[in-house]
Amino acid sequence: LKVFSLNSNVKLAEQIADHIGTRLGKCSVKRFSDGEVQINIEESIRGCDVYVVQSTCAPVNEHIMELLIMIDALKRASARSINIVMPYYGYARQDRKARSREPITAKLVADLLETAGASRVITLDLHAPQIQGFFNVPIDHLQGVPILSDYFEAKNLDDIIVVSPDHGGVTRARKMADRLKAPIGIIDKRRPRPNVAEIMNIIGNIEGKTAILIDDIIDTAGTITLAANALVENGAKEVYACCTHPVLSGPALERIDQSEIKELVITNSIPQTEDRQSDKITELSVAPLIGEAI
Amino acid sequence: LKVFSLNSNVKLAEQIADHIGTRLGKCSVKRFSDGEVQINIEESIRGCDVYVVQSTCAPVNEHIMELLIMIDALKRASARSINIVMPYYGYARQDRKARSREPITAKLVADLLETAGASRVITLDLHAPQIQGFFNVPIDHLQGVPILSDYFEAKNLDDIIVVSPDHGGVTRARKMADRLKAPIGIIDKRRPRPNVAEIMNIIGNIEGKTAILIDDIIDTAGTITLAANALVENGAKEVYACCTHPVLSGPALERIDQSEIKELVITNSIPQTEDRQSDKITELSVAPLIGEAI
Ligand SMILES: Nc1ncnc2c1ncn2[C@@H]1O[C@H](COP(=O)(O)O)[C@@H](O)[C@H]1O
Ligand SMILES: Nc1ncnc2c1ncn2[C@@H]1O[C@H](COP(=O)(O)O)[C@@H](O)[C@H]1O
Repeated sequence: LKVFSLNSNVKLAEQIADHIGTRLGKCSVKRFSDGEVQINIEESIRGCDVYVVQSTCAPVNEHIMELLIMIDALKRASARSINIVMPYYGYARQDRKARSREPITAKLVADLLETAGASRVITLDLHAPQIQGFFNVPIDHLQGVPILSDYFEAKNLDDIIVVSPDHGGVTRARKMADRLKAPIGIIDKRRPRPNVAEIMNIIGNIEGKTAILIDDIIDTAGTITLAANALVENGAKEVYACCTHPVLSGPALERIDQSEIKELVITNSIPQTEDRQSDKITELSVAPLIGEAI
Repeated sequence: LKVFSLNSNVKLAEQIADHIGTRLGKCSVKRFSDGEVQINIEESIRGCDVYVVQSTCAPVNEHIMELLIMIDALKRASARSINIVMPYYGYARQDRKARSREPITAKLVADLLETAGASRVITLDLHAPQIQGFFNVPIDHLQGVPILSDYFEAKNLDDIIVVSPDHGGVTRARKMADRLKAPIGIIDKRRPRPNVAEIMNIIGNIEGKTAILIDDIIDTAGTITLAANALVENGAKEVYACCTHPVLSGPALERIDQSEIKELVITNSIPQTEDRQSDKITELSVAPLIGEAI
């Protein structure tokens, strides 16, 4: 068994290797002068079960190509199995044709991974569980809810309500609420007419309660911060937010800092760069979870 | 028949569309806030033979992913055939395992294109003609030599010798020499011992002649500028250089400007950005050549 890390999430890869009691395999993943990926695997992997850790977060296209080229190199070096550990699955939101002539990039990525030679994929909280069906190879679909719930349980908060920021996330909120023995609420967004601001209608009794918003991905943080503000305006005592995948692009950090969110709990499925820090953010590690799955 | 352009080489795509008497199809190829590719094909292509123009030059991974996602969208929108016009084929130099555990990325790219749904590929001067065999779909392999030769023929230079900068390029030099009715020379590089500078041994009589160096790709321009300087030192009257694919990365422009190269003739298979200009460079268009092949 050998674990290799590409460039997206080296720290998490080291933690995973630690967890299973090994060191990262030696390889260098750099660029030629013209920007083409140059991979050098510096130890034999013939006959080995190889695990490659790569989140396809931004720069997503660089990270996908690194991964595909690495798989190709491992396959040609006679690895016995090539197991992809992809804590964050990029392009997961392009999982269906919402309009005519759209691509289904989440399916394309699955096909590309198989074409390159992946034998198995381990991933976390896919935006849609249907993406599992895009693969013909085995896929292990892990869940972030236990890790996030344990953190909030340890905080011993009073009078909790777990809130889903939209109807799509109710199952996830339900799971967390069960673990925290709390009720659930739902933010029911509604646009009365085109080009009129959305109305945030809150389903559930939040009066005086500690609300915990949960989502799978927080990207530009528009949805989650509007939801947090609506909860406070409508009587919630305080609002926490959490997600598995902190994409946090564009105005996300600013929005979070200026919102009613008291604390945002994320995982390290996507590493946070230097310029993407906030005192409100607490990061939990998914390394033990992934380590167990390996 | 519809021609679409992605982001790598819009000017060439327009020239190609012009040449075959049509306009570019409407589509927008942008990025979501997190950097994921967002493609919008804005006209029906059901039942059409679609041509997609994309050179996989730098940023190569962005351009490859744009292309794969576009092919996916076209396939799902029921195009009759999806023809890839790839004037420059990125990763062509990774066409074999030169060392253990190297990827063969040129083959991977071929597999990715087919997996996405390409029905045919039109390309120009592949670094190795063997790459044609990496495809199971038809591939049209066009050549830049006629365009480059015609340009030099029109200059009416006296006493020409066509020189290949290495043994790998002799066939190409031979073709140009035949068209210009000139003899050929070869630069025979040799490293006497490891870590000792290469010796540029020139095969052929260049004394007092006008040398034309020809290569397929000029990347960092190390080989070609050293060759040009060696030719002048050894008695050539003047030195021209030409190539099909002007990658021109890193120190290339500086090296060319400081070298003995009098004029560098390139094609627009790779567009030259604002920061990559030199008075020594002449650009020829491959649009008519590609237009004929469509
Ligand atoms: N990277 C992305 N950033 C923002 N929106 C996206 C992205 N990828 C896909 N989408 C859009 O998000 C929608 C799917 O999100 P959802 O409705 O939450 O499943 C689709 O309409 C997509 O066009
Ligand atoms: N983008 C690139 N830039 C520079 N060298 C490369 C690149 N891609 C592959 N190579 C190397 O170039 C060599 C092949 O070039 P050649 O001998 O001219 O066919 C191989 O040893 C590759 O490792």
